[in-house]
Amino acid sequence: MHVCPFEWRYGTEEMRKIVSHEERLKKIALVEYALLRALKELGIIPEVDPEEVLKAAEDVSVEEVEALEKELGHDIMAYLEALRRRMGEAGKYLHLGATSYDVVDTAWALTFREALSKIYKDLKEIIEKMIEMSIRYRDLPMVGRTHGQWAVPITLGFKFANYVYELARSYERLKDAEKRVVRLKLSGAVGTMASWGELAFEVERKVSEILGLEPHAISTQVAPRDGFAELVSALATLSSVLDRFALEVRELSRPEIGELVEGVGRRQVGSSTMPHKANPVTAEKISGLAKVARSLVIGELENVPLWHERDLTNSSSERVILPHAFLTVDEQLKSMKSLLNKLRVNEEAIRKHLREAGCQILAERVMIYLTLKKGVARNDAHRMVMDAVREHGDVSKAVEAGHEISKHLSREELEELCDPESYLGMAPRLVERAVEYARRVVSS
Amino acid sequence: MHVCPFEWRYGTEEMRKIVSHEERLKKIALVEYALLRALKELGIIPEVDPEEVLKAAEDVSVEEVEALEKELGHDIMAYLEALRRRMGEAGKYLHLGATSYDVVDTAWALTFREALSKIYKDLKEIIEKMIEMSIRYRDLPMVGRTHGQWAVPITLGFKFANYVYELARSYERLKDAEKRVVRLKLSGAVGTMASWGELAFEVERKVSEILGLEPHAISTQVAPRDGFAELVSALATLSSVLDRFALEVRELSRPEIGELVEGVGRRQVGSSTMPHKANPVTAEKISGLAKVARSLVIGELENVPLWHERDLTNSSSERVILPHAFLTVDEQLKSMKSLLNKLRVNEEAIRKHLREAGCQILAERVMIYLTLKKGVARNDAHRMVMDAVREHGDVSKAVEAGHEISKHLSREELEELCDPESYLGMAPRLVERAVEYARRVVSS
Amino acid sequence: MHVCPFEWRYGTEEMRKIVSHEERLKKIALVEYALLRALKELGIIPEVDPEEVLKAAEDVSVEEVEALEKELGHDIMAYLEALRRRMGEAGKYLHLGATSYDVVDTAWALTFREALSKIYKDLKEIIEKMIEMSIRYRDLPMVGRTHGQWAVPITLGFKFANYVYELARSYERLKDAEKRVVRLKLSGAVGTMASWGELAFEVERKVSEILGLEPHAISTQVAPRDGFAELVSALATLSSVLDRFALEVRELSRPEIGELVEGVGRRQVGSSTMPHKANPVTAEKISGLAKVARSLVIGELENVPLWHERDLTNSSSERVILPHAFLTVDEQLKSMKSLLNKLRVNEEAIRKHLREAGCQILAERVMIYLTLKKGVARNDAHRMVMDAVREHGDVSKAVEAGHEISKHLSREELEELCDPESYLGMAPRLVERAVEYARRVVSS
Amino acid sequence: MHVCPFEWRYGTEEMRKIVSHEERLKKIALVEYALLRALKELGIIPEVDPEEVLKAAEDVSVEEVEALEKELGHDIMAYLEALRRRMGEAGKYLHLGATSYDVVDTAWALTFREALSKIYKDLKEIIEKMIEMSIRYRDLPMVGRTHGQWAVPITLGFKFANYVYELARSYERLKDAEKRVVRLKLSGAVGTMASWGELAFEVERKVSEILGLEPHAISTQVAPRDGFAELVSALATLSSVLDRFALEVRELSRPEIGELVEGVGRRQVGSSTMPHKANPVTAEKISGLAKVARSLVIGELENVPLWHERDLTNSSSERVILPHAFLTVDEQLKSMKSLLNKLRVNEEAIRKHLREAGCQILAERVMIYLTLKKGVARNDAHRMVMDAVREHGDVSKAVEAGHEISKHLSREELEELCDPESYLGMAPRLVERAVEYARRVVSS
Repeated sequence: MHVCPFEWRYGTEEMRKIVSHEERLKKIALVEYALLRALKELGIIPEVDPEEVLKAAEDVSVEEVEALEKELGHDIMAYLEALRRRMGEAGKYLHLGATSYDVVDTAWALTFREALSKIYKDLKEIIEKMIEMSIRYRDLPMVGRTHGQWAVPITLGFKFANYVYELARSYERLKDAEKRVVRLKLSGAVGTMASWGELAFEVERKVSEILGLEPHAISTQVAPRDGFAELVSALATLSSVLDRFALEVRELSRPEIGELVEGVGRRQVGSSTMPHKANPVTAEKISGLAKVARSLVIGELENVPLWHERDLTNSSSERVILPHAFLTVDEQLKSMKSLLNKLRVNEEAIRKHLREAGCQILAERVMIYLTLKKGVARNDAHRMVMDAVREHGDVSKAVEAGHEISKHLSREELEELCDPESYLGMAPRLVERAVEYARRVVSS
Repeated sequence: MHVCPFEWRYGTEEMRKIVSHEERLKKIALVEYALLRALKELGIIPEVDPEEVLKAAEDVSVEEVEALEKELGHDIMAYLEALRRRMGEAGKYLHLGATSYDVVDTAWALTFREALSKIYKDLKEIIEKMIEMSIRYRDLPMVGRTHGQWAVPITLGFKFANYVYELARSYERLKDAEKRVVRLKLSGAVGTMASWGELAFEVERKVSEILGLEPHAISTQVAPRDGFAELVSALATLSSVLDRFALEVRELSRPEIGELVEGVGRRQVGSSTMPHKANPVTAEKISGLAKVARSLVIGELENVPLWHERDLTNSSSERVILPHAFLTVDEQLKSMKSLLNKLRVNEEAIRKHLREAGCQILAERVMIYLTLKKGVARNDAHRMVMDAVREHGDVSKAVEAGHEISKHLSREELEELCDPESYLGMAPRLVERAVEYARRVVSS
Repeated sequence: MHVCPFEWRYGTEEMRKIVSHEERLKKIALVEYALLRALKELGIIPEVDPEEVLKAAEDVSVEEVEALEKELGHDIMAYLEALRRRMGEAGKYLHLGATSYDVVDTAWALTFREALSKIYKDLKEIIEKMIEMSIRYRDLPMVGRTHGQWAVPITLGFKFANYVYELARSYERLKDAEKRVVRLKLSGAVGTMASWGELAFEVERKVSEILGLEPHAISTQVAPRDGFAELVSALATLSSVLDRFALEVRELSRPEIGELVEGVGRRQVGSSTMPHKANPVTAEKISGLAKVARSLVIGELENVPLWHERDLTNSSSERVILPHAFLTVDEQLKSMKSLLNKLRVNEEAIRKHLREAGCQILAERVMIYLTLKKGVARNDAHRMVMDAVREHGDVSKAVEAGHEISKHLSREELEELCDPESYLGMAPRLVERAVEYARRVVSS
Repeated sequence: MHVCPFEWRYGTEEMRKIVSHEERLKKIALVEYALLRALKELGIIPEVDPEEVLKAAEDVSVEEVEALEKELGHDIMAYLEALRRRMGEAGKYLHLGATSYDVVDTAWALTFREALSKIYKDLKEIIEKMIEMSIRYRDLPMVGRTHGQWAVPITLGFKFANYVYELARSYERLKDAEKRVVRLKLSGAVGTMASWGELAFEVERKVSEILGLEPHAISTQVAPRDGFAELVSALATLSSVLDRFALEVRELSRPEIGELVEGVGRRQVGSSTMPHKANPVTAEKISGLAKVARSLVIGELENVPLWHERDLTNSSSERVILPHAFLTVDEQLKSMKSLLNKLRVNEEAIRKHLREAGCQILAERVMIYLTLKKGVARNDAHRMVMDAVREHGDVSKAVEAGHEISKHLSREELEELCDPESYLGMAPRLVERAVEYARRVVSS
C-alpha cells in the first residue's frame, strides 16, 4: 500500500535509495564507525574493531529497529541497540560521547553530498543538451514574446541559451549552499564536545578526515538550520527554473503556436475520453512538481528558529521535507531529460509566425532609425511609430497608406528595416557568452 | 525501502488506507460502477451488469496498472484497461462519456468524505477530553501568561476551554469546506456533459444518488480547485491549533515551570547521550508536523489558477499534497490523543507560581479599585500602580514601603485585593460557554 | 516618500481608508465609546458622557500618538493618553477594565466587516458582469482547451459561467469566514473578564449590541487567530480565482489566439522601446498580485500558535499582513472590473479556431457513437479513433483515406458527427445552473 | 493616511529612502545617464550632455509622473516623458535602444547594492556585539537546554557564539547571492541588444564601468528572477536567525527563568491594563516580523517561471515584495541592536538553575566515566544511569539511596563528576573558532 508517489511513481531509483530510510541508517552506521575509529586511534578506547559496526549495519532490518523503538521511544537509541546486539567488544563503545544528532546531522551531510552529486550529474547533462540546442539553433530567427505578445525577434538558440545561463546559476547556487550545509557536526549533546574531554578537537579532526567533511565552526545539539533552509530554497529555485522551461514548452506546444512540441509516443494516450489528444504531459508534470518544491521551503525556513540548544520540532518536519525536496527535483530532472529528448522543433511554424509578425515587431528598429538617421527625437519617433502601428497594423502598411511616418521613410529603407534576420543583435554572441559561463561553472 | 515517513512511521493505518493509491483505485472503480449503473438504468447502454467493475477492481494489482501505464502513458487509461480485461459485456461500456477527472475528482470527493469523517471522530474525542479537563480544573487558579510573563490569574480549566473553542471552530470550518469540496464532478471532457447527450442531467442525478454526493453546479474538466485549497488550508489551520496546544505543553513542561508535563514512560529514552532526559517529544512532534501542514497550503493555492478548461499541473502536485496533508493532521490527532492521556497536571507547581506572582499580577485589580472606589482617574491609577510595582516589586511591598499609593490603600484592602482566587472573573462561566459552543458544533 | 505601492498606486481610496492606521484609531475610539456607554448604563461608573471619546478622536493626530508612544513604549496607551487629554470627566474611566486587544481586536472585527462589505459589493458587480457575459455568449461555440490543447467544444458563455460559479463560491467562503472572525472580543487581560466583576457578561452584552457584533464564546488576551488565518486564506483563494480569469485573458490574448483581448487605450504605451506593443497589462497585474496574496497566508497561519494567553508576535506581522491582504484583493477587484469593461470578444478568431480544430476535437463523439450505435467496445473505439487521428490528422481525413474506421462510418454520419454546434451538451443549461447558484449566494 | 507600517513605523529612515519609489526613480535616471554617456562616448549619438538627465531628475515630482502615467498607461514611459520635458538636446536620445527593464532591473541592482551595504553594516555591528558578549561570558557556566529541558552545561558565551556563527553565515550567504543578483541588465527588449547594433557589447561595457556592475551573461527582457528569489530567501533566512535569537531572549526572560532579560524603560508601559507588566516587546517584534519575511519568499519564488522573454506578473508583486523584504529585515536589525543594548544578564538566575540542575544534567558524564573507567558497556551504563535518575532524581541521590549504580561510584568520584564547571568541554575554544570564522567572513 502506498500513500506517497515518491515511493513508487516519481523519482529515480538512485535518488530514492540515497534519501531512503534504509540508506540513512547505513550512513548513521558509517558515522558511528568513523567515531569508533577515531576514539580507538586516539587511544580513548581500547583496541576494538570499528568495522564491527559496519558489518552489523548490513544485518539490521528496519523492522527490528522499529520494534525496538516502540520499546525505547527513541529512534536512534533503537538503532544503536540493534547494532550493538550484533557487535562484540566494539559495541561497548558504540556512540561514545556522541548525541543522536551528531550522527543524524552528519548522516544528512553525507546524504546531501550524494544527492547533490546526482543532481549535478543530471544538471550537467541537461545543460549540455541545452548548449547543444543553443548552438544548433543559434541563428534560427523567431519572434520574441513578452507579455505573451510578439516582440522583436530572437533566435531559438538564444532562447535556449537563457536556460543554459539560468541552470548554470542554479548549479552555482547549490555549490554555494553545499559548502555551508555539507559539514561535519560532531559536538555532543549541546555542542560543547565535553564528552570527549581534552581530545575533543582531535576526535573531530579524525572523523572529519575519515568522512571527508569539514566541521562546523560551532554548533548546538544540531547543525545550524539556516544551511538546511538555504539548501531547500536553492532546490526550489532550480525547480522553478525547470518550471520556467516546462512552461515555455507547454505554451509553445499550443496548437495555435506549435513551435516547440513535446513529442508524444504513438500508443500514448492523451485523454481517456478524447482520443485525439496529444498533451505536453511531461512538461506539465515538471511545472506541477515545482509547486511542491516551492511549498517545502516554508517548512524548512520555520525550522531555523529552534529553541536554545535545539528543540525537536525540526525532526518530524525534516523527515518529510528533506527527502521530498530532493525527490521532487530528481523527478523533474529526469522528466526534463526525457522532455529534451522528445522535444520537436517545428521550424515551419517558427518561420510562419515571424512572417506574420512582419514589420510590426520591428517598430523599435524603425523608431531608432528615425532618431539616429532622420533626426526625429526618440520620444516623437516612439509616438509616431506607435500611431502608425495602431492605425494601420504595421509601419509598412502605414507608409503605403500615407501616414505621417511616410515623410521620413522610403519603401527601400523600410524593406531593409523590416527584415527580422538582420535585427538579431548579439543573439549569437550572447549564446556563446552563456555557454562559456555555464562551462566554467560546471567544470569548477 | 521507504522515503516517506507517512508510509510507515506517521499516520494511522486507517487514514493511510483511506488516502492510499490502492484505495483510490477502488474508489475510482466505484465511480465507474455508479456511472455504468446510471447508464444502464437510463437505457443508454444495454442491460449489462455494472457490478462487474467492482469485482474486477478486487482483482487488479497496482503493478499491473503500472505496467500498462508504461505502455499507454496515461494512468487512468491503464487502470481502465486492467479493469476491462476482467470484465465481460459491461466492459464495453466502461467509462462511457466520462473523462478521467470525472472519476478522479469524484473519487477525491469520496476520499475527502472518509478522511474527514476520521478527522471528525478524532476531533470529537479530543474535544471531549479537553472538555473533561476544562470542567475538572474549572476552578483551579493559576497565573495567566502573556508575552511569556505573568499576567492576571486564570484557571487551568479556562485555559483548556480556549482549546475547546478553537478546536470546535476547526471542526466547524472543515464542515464548511466539506460542503464546497465533497461534491460530484461528472461533466465530461470539458464540463459540458456533451457525451451523454440529452440525458446528461439524468445521468448526473443517478450517479449523485448512488454515491450520495451533491454535484457541482458547473465545472470544467475538473472540479474547481478553490475548494481543494480551502480544504488544505482548513487542515493547516487545525494543524496550527494543535501546534498551539503542543506549544502550551512544551513550554509548561520546562523544568523551571513544570505545571503541565508530558509524562514519559519508564523505559523511554529521552536522549541517546543524556540518560537523565525526559523530553516532551509527543508535543514536539505535533508542533513539527504543523510546519509541514502550513507549507502544503501554498502548493494547493497555486493549483487554483489552472489554464482554461484545465491543465495537468494540479495532478502531480496533488498526488503529493493531498495524502500528505491528511496524514500530517492524522498523525497530529493521534499524537494529541496520546499527549492528552499522558499529560500530568502538577497542581503544586501551579500553586507555587501563583504564590510567587503574588500581589504583582493583581496590579490591574488595584488600579481599577483606585478608579472606581477611590476616585483616582484610571490613567493616574495606572501610572501610580506601575510606579509602585517597578520600584518595589509589587503593590503590597510598595504600600509597606510608604509609596505614594499607600495614601489610597489600607493593608486590609490590599489583602483582599491581592487574593488571586477572588479575581478569576467569569472563568468558570466562560468554560461553560465554550463547552456549549463545542457541543453544539460537534453534534450538528 | 513612499515605499509601499498600496499607499498610492494600488487599491481604491475607499479600501485604503478602511484599513488605514487613521481609521483604525477611529474604530478603537468607537470601541472605547461603546465600553464607556455600557459601563455607564450599568451604573459601574458615574453618569459621564461617553461621546467625549468620539469627539476627542476627531481631534487626535497620528503624530501626537507617535510622539507619546516614543515616551510610553506602547501604542495603545499612547493613543488613550492622547484621547484622555481631550476628555473631561469621562476620561477618568476610559478603557476601564479593558486590555489593549479588547479594543484592537474588536476594531479589527469592525474593519473586517467594512472591508468585506466593500469586497462583497465589488464581487457582486463582477459576478453580475460575468453573468451578463455568460448569458450573452451562452450559445457561441468555441474550442475547449485542456493542457493548452484543443478539446471538445464549449461555448464562450459556458467558460464565463465557470467563473460565475467559482466567484460565487469565494463569496460564500468569505461569508463563512466572516461569521467566525467578525466577532466582539471583550474579555480583558487574559480573557476572564475579571476586571468587570459580576457584571462582566452584562458589559459584554451591551457593547455587543452597540457595535452589532456577536462575542466570541471565550478568548485569551486576544481573539483566536484561526479566524484570522481563515480570512486571509479565503482572500488568497479569491485572489487566485481572479488570477485564473486573468490568466484566461492573457492566454487568449496571444496574437496566435486572439479570442479574448484586453483592449488597450489609443494613447496607452505598451512598451517603452517597442512602439507596436499592446499588452494585457491589467490581466497581468491581477495575476501578479495573486502571488502576494498567496504569500501572506503563510504569515497568518504562523500566527495561530501564540503562547499561552498570547504573545505579541502577531502584532507586528498583522500590521503588515492584514491591510496588505485586503488591499491586494481590492486592487485586483478594481482591475477586474476594468478588465471586464475593456474586454473584447473576437468572434471571428473563435470561429476560425473552431473551424481549424474541425473534426479532430470531436473524436470523443465518434468514439461514443461507435460504441453506442455500432457495437464497438468503448476501448476498441478509443484505440481506433486515436489511431485514425494520429495517422491522418482527424477522423474525417482518415475515413477518406480508407482507414479501418471507414468500415464503421459513412460520410454522412461523419458530417453530422463533426458539427461542433451540435456537440455542446448541457452548456447552455449549465450556464443557467451556475447563474442560479451565484444569485442564491449573493442574495443570501 | 498610512496603510503600511513600513511607511512610518518600521524600518530606518536610511533604508526607507533606499527602497523608496522616489529613490528608485533617481536610480533609473542614473542608469539613463550612464546609457546616454556610453552612447555619446561611442559616437552613436551626437555630443549631447548626459548630465541633463540627472539635473532633470532632481526636478521631477512623483505626482507629475503619476499624472503622465494615467495618460500613457506605462510608468517608465511617463517618467521618461517627465525627464525629457526638462532636457535639451540630450532628451532626444533618452532611453535610446533600452527597454524599460534595462533601467528598472539595473536600478534594482543598484538598490540591492545599497540596501545590502546597509544590512552588512548593521550585521557587522551586531556580530561585533555578539562577539563581545561571547568573549565576556565565555566562561560563565549555565545549563544547556534541549527540548526546553535541562541538558549538559554550556557557557553563556558559547550560546552567544552560536549566533556569531549563524549570523556570519547569513552575511556570507547574502554575499553569495549578491554576486548573482547585483548585475547590470542592459540587453534591450528581448535580450538580444539588437537596438545598439554592432556596438552593443561596447555600450554594455561602458555602462558597466560607469555603474560598477558586472553584466549578466545573457538575459531576456528582464534579469533572471532566480537571483531575486535567492536574495529574498537569503533575507528570510537571516530574518529567521534573528528570530531564533529573539526567541532565546523571550524564553529566557520568562519570570520562572529570568536568565536573560530584555530591559524595559522606567516609563515604558507593558500593558494598558496590567500596570505591572514588563514585556520583551522588542524581541517579540523581531520574531513577529520573521513571519512576514518568510512569507515573502513564496511570492518571489513564483516569479521565477515568467513566460518566454518575460511577462509582467513580476512587476506588481515585486513592487510589494522587494521593498517590504528589505524593510522587514532592516527593522529587525535595528531592533536587534536595541535589544542587545538593553539586554541584561542575570548571573544569579543562571547560577541558581545550574545549582538546581545539579548532578542530574551530568548524567552523560557519569555514563561515559562508567564506560571508560569502570568497564561498563556504554549501553548498560546508559540504562543504569537513566534508571538511577528516573528513580531518585539524580545520580548523586541514587548513590546515597544505594541504587545499583553505587557499586561503581564512590562519593568522591561523584563529587568530581557532578561539578558542572569542569564539564564545559571545548566551549571556550569553540567561542574562539566561531569568532575567527565570523571575523574572516565579515572582513572579506
